[in-house]
Amino acid sequence: MVYTIGPAGQLVLLPSGRRGAVPLGSDLLEAARSLGVELESICGGRQTCGKCQVIVEEGHFPKHGLTSTLAHLTEPDGRELAYWSKNGSVARPPAGRRLACAAHVLGDLLITIPEESQARKQIIAKAATERVIDVQPAVRQVYVEVRPAALHDNVGDWERLQAALAEQWDLTNLSIDPIILPTLQPALITHHSSLITQNLPLTITLWQDREVIRVQPGYAEGVYGLAVDIGSTTIVAHLCDLRTGAVLATQATVNPQVRYGEDLMSRVSYAMMEPQGVARLHRAVIGALNELAQKAAAEANLTPQDILELVVVGNPVMHHLFLDIDPVELGGAPFALAVSSPLDLKARDLGLKLHPAARVHVLPCIAGHVGADNVAVQLVEAIHQQEDLMLVIDVGTNAEIVLGNRERVLCASSPTGPAFEGAQITHGQRAAPGAIERVRIDPLTLEPRFKVIGCEEWIEPGPAASVLATGICGSGIIEAIAELYLVGLIGADGRFNVAQAAGLPQAAGLRYNGRAAHYVLAGANQTTSGRPIVITQADVRAIQLAKAALYAGVKLLMAHLGVSQVERIVLAGAFGSFISPLHAMILGLIPDCDLGRVIAVGNAAGDGARLALLNRGQRLEAARLARWVEHVQTATEPTFQDEFVAAMAIPHAADPFPHLEGILPRPAAGPSLRPSQRRQRGRGLGD
Amino acid sequence: MVYTIGPAGQLVLLPSGRRGAVPLGSDLLEAARSLGVELESICGGRQTCGKCQVIVEEGHFPKHGLTSTLAHLTEPDGRELAYWSKNGSVARPPAGRRLACAAHVLGDLLITIPEESQARKQIIAKAATERVIDVQPAVRQVYVEVRPAALHDNVGDWERLQAALAEQWDLTNLSIDPIILPTLQPALITHHSSLITQNLPLTITLWQDREVIRVQPGYAEGVYGLAVDIGSTTIVAHLCDLRTGAVLATQATVNPQVRYGEDLMSRVSYAMMEPQGVARLHRAVIGALNELAQKAAAEANLTPQDILELVVVGNPVMHHLFLDIDPVELGGAPFALAVSSPLDLKARDLGLKLHPAARVHVLPCIAGHVGADNVAVQLVEAIHQQEDLMLVIDVGTNAEIVLGNRERVLCASSPTGPAFEGAQITHGQRAAPGAIERVRIDPLTLEPRFKVIGCEEWIEPGPAASVLATGICGSGIIEAIAELYLVGLIGADGRFNVAQAAGLPQAAGLRYNGRAAHYVLAGANQTTSGRPIVITQADVRAIQLAKAALYAGVKLLMAHLGVSQVERIVLAGAFGSFISPLHAMILGLIPDCDLGRVIAVGNAAGDGARLALLNRGQRLEAARLARWVEHVQTATEPTFQDEFVAAMAIPHAADPFPHLEGILPRPAAGPSLRPSQRRQRGRGLGD
Repeated sequence: MVYTIGPAGQLVLLPSGRRGAVPLGSDLLEAARSLGVELESICGGRQTCGKCQVIVEEGHFPKHGLTSTLAHLTEPDGRELAYWSKNGSVARPPAGRRLACAAHVLGDLLITIPEESQARKQIIAKAATERVIDVQPAVRQVYVEVRPAALHDNVGDWERLQAALAEQWDLTNLSIDPIILPTLQPALITHHSSLITQNLPLTITLWQDREVIRVQPGYAEGVYGLAVDIGSTTIVAHLCDLRTGAVLATQATVNPQVRYGEDLMSRVSYAMMEPQGVARLHRAVIGALNELAQKAAAEANLTPQDILELVVVGNPVMHHLFLDIDPVELGGAPFALAVSSPLDLKARDLGLKLHPAARVHVLPCIAGHVGADNVAVQLVEAIHQQEDLMLVIDVGTNAEIVLGNRERVLCASSPTGPAFEGAQITHGQRAAPGAIERVRIDPLTLEPRFKVIGCEEWIEPGPAASVLATGICGSGIIEAIAELYLVGLIGADGRFNVAQAAGLPQAAGLRYNGRAAHYVLAGANQTTSGRPIVITQADVRAIQLAKAALYAGVKLLMAHLGVSQVERIVLAGAFGSFISPLHAMILGLIPDCDLGRVIAVGNAAGDGARLALLNRGQRLEAARLARWVEHVQTATEPTFQDEFVAAMAIPHAADPFPHLEGILPRPAAGPSLRPSQRRQRGRGLGD
Repeated sequence: MVYTIGPAGQLVLLPSGRRGAVPLGSDLLEAARSLGVELESICGGRQTCGKCQVIVEEGHFPKHGLTSTLAHLTEPDGRELAYWSKNGSVARPPAGRRLACAAHVLGDLLITIPEESQARKQIIAKAATERVIDVQPAVRQVYVEVRPAALHDNVGDWERLQAALAEQWDLTNLSIDPIILPTLQPALITHHSSLITQNLPLTITLWQDREVIRVQPGYAEGVYGLAVDIGSTTIVAHLCDLRTGAVLATQATVNPQVRYGEDLMSRVSYAMMEPQGVARLHRAVIGALNELAQKAAAEANLTPQDILELVVVGNPVMHHLFLDIDPVELGGAPFALAVSSPLDLKARDLGLKLHPAARVHVLPCIAGHVGADNVAVQLVEAIHQQEDLMLVIDVGTNAEIVLGNRERVLCASSPTGPAFEGAQITHGQRAAPGAIERVRIDPLTLEPRFKVIGCEEWIEPGPAASVLATGICGSGIIEAIAELYLVGLIGADGRFNVAQAAGLPQAAGLRYNGRAAHYVLAGANQTTSGRPIVITQADVRAIQLAKAALYAGVKLLMAHLGVSQVERIVLAGAFGSFISPLHAMILGLIPDCDLGRVIAVGNAAGDGARLALLNRGQRLEAARLARWVEHVQTATEPTFQDEFVAAMAIPHAADPFPHLEGILPRPAAGPSLRPSQRRQRGRGLGD
């Protein structure tokens, strides 16, 4: 770089519009940087990577007060021409294009920086509150040129590479993963020298600017990572391009641990009772991750060996089993975590078949029941940055509840059980094509219509449907019960209004055999099994228990914070992105709130893992959050039982829902009970 | 600890004799430390390990000017009594004994610190110059007590352990090897609380005070390491107690790589030619190390899982193959090392079956032909600290030569080939029981007598021996040829004096069939094979070539340093600890020197590895040395060929050996040749 002290050129950079005087002689990479605009560059200004391409606008631009022309830049030198010629433009740059690192300023210039040359790649967090996050991953590539070995220069290849990285990239105190040492010499030998210098070109992949984890011959491009949410039921993996932040593939699979136990407690029992239990559960999840990595890589035309980092989140039991740690202590008080802080380890130590030196980052856990998945949700929703009092509910096999704003954030877990995931429901199933996900009941005919996942149309009652239902998932059952309540087929206590059954036409759905009632949601001609899909009294009870546990947890956190109203609600988790806020509120699953401010966001934990994969700062934020957030142990709160019982009623035995005014039925289903009766009755409901 | 500001007691510590005033109330551990005397303590003053035991001398000591009595210490408290009772002294300390950490000073005291309680364990380096090295290994144990998990305390076990280590040992910024995370909770649960406090006792093993690599329940003792020299022919392993520095077991084995090639170059060729060559050579050495670890551990009643660190040295080819790096670049100029600096890695990454979190430290290499084994030799011999000009020759398949003193140290390698190890010698073999290791030839009868390894007696010529010879090793062949020269059976040019053969009695040993001569060292009745062991003309030539290469290298280094005489010589390496300096000098293997200052030290490389295993500072010293020492590339020196040719003669064609005055025969064997003739003839010798 030649800096001429003296006259300066006016430089205007589009699209940002930044402008300023830059010394004549400086190269455009430096000049743009001096105006605060960072250009992409992998090769560090060696005219190799072509990432810093800019477009020189030619002409007179009165608005900007200057005349810009290619002649206001130095001519392309041999090295730049070599780049263009290697990239299809024989011996000259394409019209208007230059490499910013090679072109030196000779006068006024108007430069457009195409999006691909802008250094700060950004991603949008798919949160309730849209946020923009810089792509600053822990793993990145740099291009270096290493001086060749010489007879009287006795240092090794690795030491000469270290010298090159220090000199060309200011990277010092680097280590190298010993497992890739054997690849260094072959990579150096591949090219005997670079195009221009006698030095040997290499592309180095770095982890946290601390450790060399890959060495590739010559100039290479491509660094990928996998963000994984290990749910008790479902494992989701996002394969990301760590340079652009783009999601290249998303794959999901059933957690194969389900074969050893449907819910968390049964897996903890399995780990405790079976001699090889922990090892089996650990191998199951690692096997599933290897398969997901394989599938996701294949979808993006890559191999698992292209994956250099894995970020993992999961609830504490999943977190421990992923690390091969016995989860038995999580099964009983004091619910001791073996490790709570974030961890960095090597994928190979866990049996993961990614790149041999691939890294794993595991987000921290908050408490024995509030894990790294919840930290990930908090990261995405950034509750700790909100003005409004925000309630985030993440429902999986357990429900995690987070309540707060930038002043203070509380969290808790509630033992909802797996009902919201469709388990323990007569025709329940997880959200998959064929599952009934939406339900409406006609208030006049009391007949149902429904939608199944994978089909846009509503299926009307009666005629044989062209799309057959396989079962009902969490969002479907929530809507079904809320609708049954709205039309009066079940009362606030959750009981089927069997008196009505006799008076209804057969098609209306409610059946009563003198002992038990159920509601027919889909007729035998509308299902794959050829048998009706029904909601039983037991199903309603299971949902009541689950929602009461959740609501009681929310109330406890509100009491801890001394508030009686929340300003925003985010529903996350596996019961479906498409849960209807209205029906959730009618059912009394969430407290009263402006319905326009209740949002369902789907798998927020997976999105949080993606943020941590793409941005190093977000990992630090996660570690800070995990220790700053206050955890409330709901199980030991003296008022939990009372809150739980009151929350059994639909929508609630005591709490008002002003935002459902005119939607909820009049309290005609029965006079409200006195507290003592409520309690007695409430207790009986669990039977 | 209770410190009373005010009156002090006089404390005298034996055996050091250190004395001084210490505040009344301070405990003896603190008090001794204040006088600069460090006591052993693993538990950190918790009256658990019993390592800080001291003996209180009772009586009046006029020499020291004080009266010392047990009454000048506080009474043993419950915790100390618990220790003594657990260790066999029911409810009271044995006569005169106290735990220094538990006894507080109340008056004047004369204390003897038994050797086992002295903190600074030391080892003697088995070098030519005896040196004392502190035992300060990279791996050590500490005892901690961790607060138990509690319902409202959400940090994990690891985080509580970190807090305990910071508080009780001032150890911060620690990481834990993720592979041992699963062992932490079970270790904590083993003891529900320690004897006295409610806290949970653990013994932690640390690597470099940076990483936790083992967690054991309660109080535990025992930390072991393995120092390994990977020779081309032989691998030697020393199992050491890292607390005391003691060598618990030494095991050696033939390097199984020999099946793929006897010498280094043939192994490099194998690696180059065979598709799986590098992997096979790597697996062979790892397999051998696993076997050595197994055997050494068994000898010390341990298991390989008790080994927490391995220190490895070897020549560059062995070094690379140990790391699974292709050594092909070491086979040709510029002899590029893939890595030269010291390396720390995890044993499991190499397939070593030691403790799952065991570490490996690999010493640095100096150049493509001067490896970590030579650095280890330099470490032991501490050439860089000597006043005298010292020459160290380490002979294996190649010879490494180091010359210098504290001002400047040069090193080089010489391609001696494996003749000194017994290879390429008709009846050669490596040093093992049954090998002829010493030879004398009667100057009058010209008959030989010899000693074999494993038997103290000299075997005389003629009668059937009770101990049979299997072959001849390096030191044997050197002595044999030197003796043949001394008695005039071979000339300075190395040729058998066949004219004598006719005139000798049959028993005298020299045989000549008209075309070739040989000397019978052991008769058919003295060998295991039933056939005579002989020295052929070709054997003499092979040794001449080897010693000439070595001597020429020495001369080059002397020329570089501008010296004509060395002051001390150390002979190290596999040709036997018992090489006779006199015979080596007669043969002209080493330059002239006071024979009293020529010492053979055996496997110095293995001893250097042991130093680096037992002392962290020695590793830093090794790293510094490897870059400070100047390497001379002998092969490219223009004078090497001339020096080589001159050194073919016995002892040398030109150099005087004043220290052999009266020992060497008169130059009657023939007139010395003129240089030009010497050169011509010298070249012919290799045929």
